[in-house]
Amino acid sequence: MTERFALDLARAMSTMLANDGQVVVGSDYRTTSAELRATVLGGLLGGGVDVVDAGIVPTPVLAFGVRAVGANAGIMVTASHNPPEDNGVKCYSHEGREYIPEEEQILEQFIAWRKFTDVTWDRMGTQIVAPDFVDEYAQLILRRVGSLRRKLKVVVDCANGTTYNLTPLILSKLGCEVISVNAHPDGRFPGRPAEPSPENLVTACNFVRSLKADLGIAHDGDGDRLAVIDEKGRYVNNDTVLAFFARLLLAENGPGRIITSVDTSSRIYVVARSSGGKVERTRLGKTHAVLDEENRKSIRLCCEPWKIIDPTWGFWGDAVYAACRLVQSLGQTKGPVSSLFRGIPENPQKRFFFRCPDESKDIVMAKVSQELTRQKDVNEVWTFDGVRVNFHDESWILVRKSGTEGKIRIYCEGRTPRRLKQLISKSSSLVTSAIKSAHKSNVRPTQN
Amino acid sequence: MTERFALDLARAMSTMLANDGQVVVGSDYRTTSAELRATVLGGLLGGGVDVVDAGIVPTPVLAFGVRAVGANAGIMVTASHNPPEDNGVKCYSHEGREYIPEEEQILEQFIAWRKFTDVTWDRMGTQIVAPDFVDEYAQLILRRVGSLRRKLKVVVDCANGTTYNLTPLILSKLGCEVISVNAHPDGRFPGRPAEPSPENLVTACNFVRSLKADLGIAHDGDGDRLAVIDEKGRYVNNDTVLAFFARLLLAENGPGRIITSVDTSSRIYVVARSSGGKVERTRLGKTHAVLDEENRKSIRLCCEPWKIIDPTWGFWGDAVYAACRLVQSLGQTKGPVSSLFRGIPENPQKRFFFRCPDESKDIVMAKVSQELTRQKDVNEVWTFDGVRVNFHDESWILVRKSGTEGKIRIYCEGRTPRRLKQLISKSSSLVTSAIKSAHKSNVRPTQN
Amino acid sequence: MTERFALDLARAMSTMLANDGQVVVGSDYRTTSAELRATVLGGLLGGGVDVVDAGIVPTPVLAFGVRAVGANAGIMVTASHNPPEDNGVKCYSHEGREYIPEEEQILEQFIAWRKFTDVTWDRMGTQIVAPDFVDEYAQLILRRVGSLRRKLKVVVDCANGTTYNLTPLILSKLGCEVISVNAHPDGRFPGRPAEPSPENLVTACNFVRSLKADLGIAHDGDGDRLAVIDEKGRYVNNDTVLAFFARLLLAENGPGRIITSVDTSSRIYVVARSSGGKVERTRLGKTHAVLDEENRKSIRLCCEPWKIIDPTWGFWGDAVYAACRLVQSLGQTKGPVSSLFRGIPENPQKRFFFRCPDESKDIVMAKVSQELTRQKDVNEVWTFDGVRVNFHDESWILVRKSGTEGKIRIYCEGRTPRRLKQLISKSSSLVTSAIKSAHKSNVRPTQN
Amino acid sequence: MTERFALDLARAMSTMLANDGQVVVGSDYRTTSAELRATVLGGLLGGGVDVVDAGIVPTPVLAFGVRAVGANAGIMVTASHNPPEDNGVKCYSHEGREYIPEEEQILEQFIAWRKFTDVTWDRMGTQIVAPDFVDEYAQLILRRVGSLRRKLKVVVDCANGTTYNLTPLILSKLGCEVISVNAHPDGRFPGRPAEPSPENLVTACNFVRSLKADLGIAHDGDGDRLAVIDEKGRYVNNDTVLAFFARLLLAENGPGRIITSVDTSSRIYVVARSSGGKVERTRLGKTHAVLDEENRKSIRLCCEPWKIIDPTWGFWGDAVYAACRLVQSLGQTKGPVSSLFRGIPENPQKRFFFRCPDESKDIVMAKVSQELTRQKDVNEVWTFDGVRVNFHDESWILVRKSGTEGKIRIYCEGRTPRRLKQLISKSSSLVTSAIKSAHKSNVRPTQN
Repeated sequence: MTERFALDLARAMSTMLANDGQVVVGSDYRTTSAELRATVLGGLLGGGVDVVDAGIVPTPVLAFGVRAVGANAGIMVTASHNPPEDNGVKCYSHEGREYIPEEEQILEQFIAWRKFTDVTWDRMGTQIVAPDFVDEYAQLILRRVGSLRRKLKVVVDCANGTTYNLTPLILSKLGCEVISVNAHPDGRFPGRPAEPSPENLVTACNFVRSLKADLGIAHDGDGDRLAVIDEKGRYVNNDTVLAFFARLLLAENGPGRIITSVDTSSRIYVVARSSGGKVERTRLGKTHAVLDEENRKSIRLCCEPWKIIDPTWGFWGDAVYAACRLVQSLGQTKGPVSSLFRGIPENPQKRFFFRCPDESKDIVMAKVSQELTRQKDVNEVWTFDGVRVNFHDESWILVRKSGTEGKIRIYCEGRTPRRLKQLISKSSSLVTSAIKSAHKSNVRPTQN
Repeated sequence: MTERFALDLARAMSTMLANDGQVVVGSDYRTTSAELRATVLGGLLGGGVDVVDAGIVPTPVLAFGVRAVGANAGIMVTASHNPPEDNGVKCYSHEGREYIPEEEQILEQFIAWRKFTDVTWDRMGTQIVAPDFVDEYAQLILRRVGSLRRKLKVVVDCANGTTYNLTPLILSKLGCEVISVNAHPDGRFPGRPAEPSPENLVTACNFVRSLKADLGIAHDGDGDRLAVIDEKGRYVNNDTVLAFFARLLLAENGPGRIITSVDTSSRIYVVARSSGGKVERTRLGKTHAVLDEENRKSIRLCCEPWKIIDPTWGFWGDAVYAACRLVQSLGQTKGPVSSLFRGIPENPQKRFFFRCPDESKDIVMAKVSQELTRQKDVNEVWTFDGVRVNFHDESWILVRKSGTEGKIRIYCEGRTPRRLKQLISKSSSLVTSAIKSAHKSNVRPTQN
Repeated sequence: MTERFALDLARAMSTMLANDGQVVVGSDYRTTSAELRATVLGGLLGGGVDVVDAGIVPTPVLAFGVRAVGANAGIMVTASHNPPEDNGVKCYSHEGREYIPEEEQILEQFIAWRKFTDVTWDRMGTQIVAPDFVDEYAQLILRRVGSLRRKLKVVVDCANGTTYNLTPLILSKLGCEVISVNAHPDGRFPGRPAEPSPENLVTACNFVRSLKADLGIAHDGDGDRLAVIDEKGRYVNNDTVLAFFARLLLAENGPGRIITSVDTSSRIYVVARSSGGKVERTRLGKTHAVLDEENRKSIRLCCEPWKIIDPTWGFWGDAVYAACRLVQSLGQTKGPVSSLFRGIPENPQKRFFFRCPDESKDIVMAKVSQELTRQKDVNEVWTFDGVRVNFHDESWILVRKSGTEGKIRIYCEGRTPRRLKQLISKSSSLVTSAIKSAHKSNVRPTQN
Repeated sequence: MTERFALDLARAMSTMLANDGQVVVGSDYRTTSAELRATVLGGLLGGGVDVVDAGIVPTPVLAFGVRAVGANAGIMVTASHNPPEDNGVKCYSHEGREYIPEEEQILEQFIAWRKFTDVTWDRMGTQIVAPDFVDEYAQLILRRVGSLRRKLKVVVDCANGTTYNLTPLILSKLGCEVISVNAHPDGRFPGRPAEPSPENLVTACNFVRSLKADLGIAHDGDGDRLAVIDEKGRYVNNDTVLAFFARLLLAENGPGRIITSVDTSSRIYVVARSSGGKVERTRLGKTHAVLDEENRKSIRLCCEPWKIIDPTWGFWGDAVYAACRLVQSLGQTKGPVSSLFRGIPENPQKRFFFRCPDESKDIVMAKVSQELTRQKDVNEVWTFDGVRVNFHDESWILVRKSGTEGKIRIYCEGRTPRRLKQLISKSSSLVTSAIKSAHKSNVRPTQN
């Protein structure tokens, strides 16, 4: 993302807001975030919009801040869990909900056509001192969660990101004994890559084990993602964490809808079924899009890997809040953190990919799609985001083309390890042969 | 000035500084200054340059700040004394000297060719908290000027600009009784136009008179211009103020050179002659350009209307410092402020203009130039910025084309009112006939 | 007020709040305010209370801020309109109402007995970044008042106090042409004494006249007092301004109660009578004390000289809001500002005093009280704050002992100038003879 | 330390500075530091001294800041490495040198006698915005140390203190791969006690080992103490670290004096001997006291356990600077960090104590002193801070009474483990019998 684009985006946002109102602007610690935040700020002021500069904050705090001050929108400069050289923006509605595709399209069209409305010199926006969003946010969580019934020892890995002065402190105030790792802010992510994947949390897992901590909490660089490490130092499967929150929120708020992305496990059905939940699927990265005024009352949870939206708390993915809720639940039991996940089936999973040139992706997907749906024992087929076939035994295969890289991605989950092996073998051969036939060339399958 | 230009300028500056080092950025209170300052800041950070954001400060404080922190350059967003809808930038060298034409050309060429060097994500600039430049600056003046020997009552008119929290306070601390007018900051300049011209200071003059103050001090919007009102509420001629400073600084620092712009009075020769000064002329707005390392020791003053550079203090035009020096001088005498200007000839002046289309300006100037130099009694002719003829009796005529408007400007000063009338009549007829012959059209002479 | 007292006060406040909750702290520009604000802040934090440091703000903005953030209390370091060497504090309830005598007594007793509850090291308060109260406050007024129907030229005299960046700007935004005087902040009050009394506004009055402004607005140092200058440069009597607001608010909000202090004119009855208002009197400085939850609905205005509380806006004296409402009213008429006061009787007044040693005050007051009530034509006698006798013709005399100086103060208002003269003479002789008989000594009556 | 004391201290400092000049004030993150810093600030302003509020900074940065802005003194609110419930202040001279006993006595006497000079209301101090000391400090180190010749993997344990945003970042910028632990700021020290003793760094040591890091760096809560962990995860003896710096600085700056406290190892002699150094001893906590203008040129290092003063860098204990120098040295070698300490004898040590009532301490010390000096093979006896006997074989015993607790402390170092055992046994029996004879009571020796 260039500064010119940041300027255009700010102008597009100003135009969309009719050159009036207020926008909260924040960023993460990336080395390119300060320049982009300053440029966005300049563009908004020049577009006649007042700006509340929230500075460097976790993404959920930015979304919270938009709602807290009654602003018209929010802009967060961040590339979330991506490498330090990347950057981008997330836009938020006045309620703190990330922009839905329709809203993003309006911005994109303004930018594409450069149709920005200008304002005269005497109608420029003014910069407004931001209130202490981090403190307000923390107070609100503390009031909601209360204090723990028992002392828990927690390792918190902040990925050298914006949660460094929030998650460890708030867990301390809830009554935890906190040991932090990678908690000095540094946009170069020196301690580990920002994505809280199992590979990146090996150190944190070891740390939980050697300290005999009750659990570990890990974030990405901007605090919208949560990974959990159990009392034995084992990484808890993302989908299992989501299923835990589905069960928790259905129990708290009564039967309702669970919105989850196309790539999550079938285990969420098992949980939902027994708790009065109805699972609905969306495209990846769009679970928030259903949160309109009509729907939101019936929705108990929107979730995708590492991201949790509890609509009774806010319409944004919030890993700090989720961490506090998990710890609160643990405090109410006597067992270890792994006992919270009891009853959630741990069907084995695998994610991998094959390289495929961009120009062949669509042919490959068409071919694979056709073949997959012909498999036996297929219960259901989804085609709104790649193709996913669900088998009668809760096993499934998802094949998607990558939006940013030359890859076809495959996700498999099997009822048993053996079944998983079968699915991997089947899907691999379907995809590789489709790529081959598309290219008449020798494709070296690479697994990740 | 657009935000895109501000971004380009910042990138040009970064490129010029080899994507390294530190720049101090400031602005005045104009409604468009906040957006431009933010965009400049973003552009510099993105160009790999560290930024000290000085916020809203008087222009002399920005220049002082560059020198104080040892930065590599400074950028001030301001349109100085111009109307509130205008805006622009001034760039400063590491010594606080405004950029000279050669430096400006380098920036302009980078911008024209869009030849900006980029830096990688891990070499972005960082934003540095600015020290309290206003306080440091005030302390330094106070140490230099000391306290007054007698109490003076001063009216200060801040033009609703950036000097509001500096000039009145510093004069108070020197021991003055200060009454301020137009001293709340407002970039719309509600109290009066920002230029401290006699027309715009009628109210301030009345105020000095009715309060029986000892003097009045008026600034433009960003504090690089000084106008003086005497104890009777009369506006003191700009050139007389310059002559006063020439005399003061020659007396203090010994014989030396006085650099002044093409459009100032001959009275400065009278003063210089008796104080060991040698007057040199430069183009308008470029008196600072001679302040290189070799020259500066021999220079006692650079000045143009309302702007005063004392090289022993700093290489920038500084109306706050100048106001303090004037008040200090007054405190050392027993007479009224008008007595400070004794011995400076008050030859009458007039400035006016005729409208002339841009495309005819050069022909007109050539014609007028030819005619003017043919006048009798001409002692000297200067042609480096318009044409100025100096007569043997210290009368003179200057004709210049406006750089920004469709105007030919005329400046006349006569030894006597009658002589002035003659010069006005002569120059008017020369210019109007040149315009007529250039256009064969009826030009309505408009006087300002 | 010493720093030790400031520390004790903060501890008393913490104790009163049970060492919990949040207090907003602000101050004016006095030279002693920064130290006292810092000490109060330290004391509150040490007493376990969270602090929002609002910095330097007008008193009404501090009160507004307490309500805006939902704090438990507010402390404003200010000596309001008193000389620059004085200082003190005003405490505010969570609603922004100044503490009533009962609340003040609790604080005083904690201080007197030094009964402060301490908290352990781990329960200290935390300092919270303040939101932009000045902006929020200004936005709220602008939404309420709207923009003016006609352009008005207004002179604003800020007494070099905290309103410098609020009243002039907000009037500009309403559509006024604003010329400010004494608008650079300086806690030494260089321009004029902070009290907006007629004597101190001679310059501002002249200024209104010479600029042919539509009106003048003057504040004290902290913005809770409003004085008005009419289109002819005449100071509008305080009590007339109060009567104007009584009429305005009764018209807007329907019949109700008008609370005013013992020392204001009877003209407010005239206005109230015709607008459905019922006037009630309180001790001086305590008109806010009736604003409890039960009473506030029936109250239309609390007022004392220069101070106006409109309960539909807030429970604090607010001269910035009042100025905007006055200007709004003027914008709705076509006449001059003096026409707003039509129908309000301008009975002549005089305030003066006699020196009297503290030890004799009570005897003198008893004697004077006895004599005054024996006068003929007395309609009503009030003794809750000094003694005031109201005559049948709306003339009245008030005699009060000063709380801070060795003085007996006399206030007279007569139906006619002649009647006033009579009352002055009568009250003077009563008081001087009482002082004489108390001391058997020669008292030189001094009038102020 | 109470707020009242903080106020008195500030007043004493103001008095000492003749109610003039400038003081830089900072604090650590302790929960009681904010209130004390605010109160100190209030007291200084009220004492007529200008204040630069540096906010929360490491202690070496505060000392650096005093020198950087040319202030007259500095006050740091911190209890250094002590438990979170403690707090106190350190005062600094205009050069950034901690106050010497003579200066402390002056302050103490002003406080004891409450002889504070007051200033009038118009001479109060003003608060000055602090420059970005952390950035300035980091820049200076980076210029001095340069970048590393090889990549080093470093674990940094910040004790949840003020170095969290300094040491990890600066080591990154030097070219290290940094993994931080306990790096989120929290004045409750949740991760480990603030003292960087071996017991408190068990986790950090494990961490270095399991991450296969090149070394570990640990601080106390305010950054004036440095502990080092070697490539095998072993805690490096404090005295060995000091000897390393003695050798380094003697090599860099030529032969000179090494000032160290009474309680450090004899190994420093070994190093000094071979590097042209002369070791001198001072009381514990007073090694900085010799740094007057005359002495400083000849001094190469002042040191006591964990604290390092390099006079060519600054006159304050600076663990951030020391960490950078150590890492720089390591970068210049090819070996592991342990190789830096080669040639420094690792004679075994032990520190322990016996409980002893305050009233008996002096008798006990007198007795023990007498006995100790009678031991055979004694080479030298020091009595300026407890009693230390140095034997001919470089073994030694030090006995000191604790200044703050009811304890007699014993320090032993032996040439061999067997010799150490002997010394422990001897000193223990001397001390216990002295305590017994002083009390005729049964003392249970407790070892720490």
